[in-house]
Amino acid sequence: MDIKSYMETLGRQARAAATEMARAPTQAKNDALIELARLLRAAGAPLQQANDRDIAAAEATGLAAPMVDRLRLTAKVIDTVAEGCEQLAVMPDPIGEMTGIKCQPSGISVGRMRVPLGVFGMIYESRPNVTIEAASLAIKSGNACILRGGSEAIQSNLALWKLVQQAMTTAGLPSNAVQLVETTDRAAVGELITMPQFVDVIVPRGGKGLIERISKEAKVPVIKHLDGNCHTYVDAEVDIEQALVVTDNAKTQKYSPCNATESLLVHEHSAAAFLPRIGAIFATKGVEMRCDPAAKAILKAVPGAKLAAATEADWSTEYLAPIISVKIVGSLDEAIAHINHYSSHHTDAILTTNHPNAMRFLREVDSSSVMVNASTRFADGFEYGLGAEIGISTDKIHARGPVGLDGLTSQKWVVLGDGQVRR
Amino acid sequence: MDIKSYMETLGRQARAAATEMARAPTQAKNDALIELARLLRAAGAPLQQANDRDIAAAEATGLAAPMVDRLRLTAKVIDTVAEGCEQLAVMPDPIGEMTGIKCQPSGISVGRMRVPLGVFGMIYESRPNVTIEAASLAIKSGNACILRGGSEAIQSNLALWKLVQQAMTTAGLPSNAVQLVETTDRAAVGELITMPQFVDVIVPRGGKGLIERISKEAKVPVIKHLDGNCHTYVDAEVDIEQALVVTDNAKTQKYSPCNATESLLVHEHSAAAFLPRIGAIFATKGVEMRCDPAAKAILKAVPGAKLAAATEADWSTEYLAPIISVKIVGSLDEAIAHINHYSSHHTDAILTTNHPNAMRFLREVDSSSVMVNASTRFADGFEYGLGAEIGISTDKIHARGPVGLDGLTSQKWVVLGDGQVRR
Repeated sequence: MDIKSYMETLGRQARAAATEMARAPTQAKNDALIELARLLRAAGAPLQQANDRDIAAAEATGLAAPMVDRLRLTAKVIDTVAEGCEQLAVMPDPIGEMTGIKCQPSGISVGRMRVPLGVFGMIYESRPNVTIEAASLAIKSGNACILRGGSEAIQSNLALWKLVQQAMTTAGLPSNAVQLVETTDRAAVGELITMPQFVDVIVPRGGKGLIERISKEAKVPVIKHLDGNCHTYVDAEVDIEQALVVTDNAKTQKYSPCNATESLLVHEHSAAAFLPRIGAIFATKGVEMRCDPAAKAILKAVPGAKLAAATEADWSTEYLAPIISVKIVGSLDEAIAHINHYSSHHTDAILTTNHPNAMRFLREVDSSSVMVNASTRFADGFEYGLGAEIGISTDKIHARGPVGLDGLTSQKWVVLGDGQVRR
Repeated sequence: MDIKSYMETLGRQARAAATEMARAPTQAKNDALIELARLLRAAGAPLQQANDRDIAAAEATGLAAPMVDRLRLTAKVIDTVAEGCEQLAVMPDPIGEMTGIKCQPSGISVGRMRVPLGVFGMIYESRPNVTIEAASLAIKSGNACILRGGSEAIQSNLALWKLVQQAMTTAGLPSNAVQLVETTDRAAVGELITMPQFVDVIVPRGGKGLIERISKEAKVPVIKHLDGNCHTYVDAEVDIEQALVVTDNAKTQKYSPCNATESLLVHEHSAAAFLPRIGAIFATKGVEMRCDPAAKAILKAVPGAKLAAATEADWSTEYLAPIISVKIVGSLDEAIAHINHYSSHHTDAILTTNHPNAMRFLREVDSSSVMVNASTRFADGFEYGLGAEIGISTDKIHARGPVGLDGLTSQKWVVLGDGQVRR
């Protein structure tokens, strides 16, 4: 079978399974999740051997050690994804939820019902645990999914997928609701993203290049973010001690996540009190500061500070590294305008004690998450109470910010009457 | 200026105005709507003369009388759109609404805030009143919009737009928040739908051909429906008298709207009692029935019935005319499967007294509106209590079904902390 026919077969099977999943009882979905967790914990040698084959192959091709590490299904990784399944099992079922049912003047009652989107395609790299995360979210949200993992994790993904199918069958759910693309042929991705008749939405996870290419070529909606150029703005009226702790955390708690702060804006009234002290913390941790002239003039007095002059490109850059851009602004308006111009609309925070300023920042900064007096590192499905996260969206249409079960659903209108007609 | 530069200028101006509209006070938006209603009612001769020029031009080119009628800004049309503005003015402002704020274990409070989408482009034909409907929805929802009306209504649209600009200025809002494309050059549409940097969503209203072309060529999301192939299903257990009234209304109250029923499914247990009587009503009103063999066998006894054998194409056809397809089904499952296969996912209704069947239909029929014991003709923004409607969407992503103010907004995440950091 050629790739196009193969992918269409997966698509047709997914569409059929989606209809069954949409009406699946909550109990069956939860049973499948609990059983999957049990199978994962009991998998033992066969799963380890599959994973070992991927790791051996990766090492043989000279893949960098951190990349090889991402492939590894350690006992801890297995336990974390099993726990994730169990947590999803105890969450309320989003499907069938009816909200806002109101009686209209005509006598009909009108509201909304939450239903699955149908079929989602997930495209991801390296980490095989994403196979289980995506499968478990599909099960709970009543969707079918087609999973396309990285070729470097194919053996692990196949082994994990077998457990998913087994759990689905045990629970009486259609095993085709979760399908894995079994070929590593790259043409499969091109087919997956151009089958609107079978796939309702694509969720890519991976490098910016991959996601840009998918967004450009897809014929179905894509839930995605490209960059996380997050800002922390220290206002004129601020609790300096709190701002130091929060800014430090936002930048240095981890450098690689998309919700780490990459740019620090400081109101000129706070600069003298705040900048030298945060500069000293960054100096200790080896964080390079790329500054506008005013910030640099203050920071140059900090012993050991790694300073550079910020270029125009710095204001738009997601470093994912111990580097931060620093700018002094004259007003809240300037801060908001700077953020709306340079931000990637991911997550931006204001640190302030001034209530009107906090409210203006929340309302006027056009990002998927806006925060007051908190670390940008909180922008995460688990921290937001979503239970799980399939990805983060910086688009405004459909899902915005961390995407959990709800982002994999839509709401249709329900009308309850007892014989009403239109006049 | 060439068309591309002209449209980019409109786009840039819209984007700038959108920032101001996003933070505009509710009072200013309501003032603009009230003032617009006043200006419309007071417009008198200049508006009439502009409208007369469009009508004279349309008649000179030999446009069909019903099409010319759609152009006409009668006193009643003016009063209706003015009233629409006043109704929007008294509705609660959707922007800034915060919902679901919950305290998380980390101590941060997390919820959502409703914000405008930014800029929408509206593409429409004939009726100049759409200019006011779109402008008033943009004002209340805090968006900017770029309006592209039909060339046959250009003089009327320009005159109406002048009133909108005047009302905006009086209320202290940026007049560029509502812009009308002043050229009738068709290339303007091509530019409008391919400027993602300036336009967040496109709302087309018009014939299926126009909407298909826009959806295909657009580089931004499109809120749309192509067809309204709506079903009414008469279940095995049903109040026959009520079913007759509702089915008659769903088909014959008006033939042209997209929410009129085009296909009637009848459970075989109800066929003998229901079909001859609805057939007699349709016969009286001259509604042609395109039947499957079983339905035709029953209906042929009805005096004066216009009967034909349904072809495969009939099950997918939106007639917008006194024609209905009729099929007898053996079960609720068959009805749901038929609807999910042939429906345009617009609006489908079940008429039943059986509660489990009603709930299964609501949940399993994959359409933007699903109804129990009500006429499909109710699928409408006003009837749903939305106050106004910019269009109807049969997509599952973002807005689904009748789209009101909420469909022109998105929800971002807000995080309220007092110094929390990520552990």
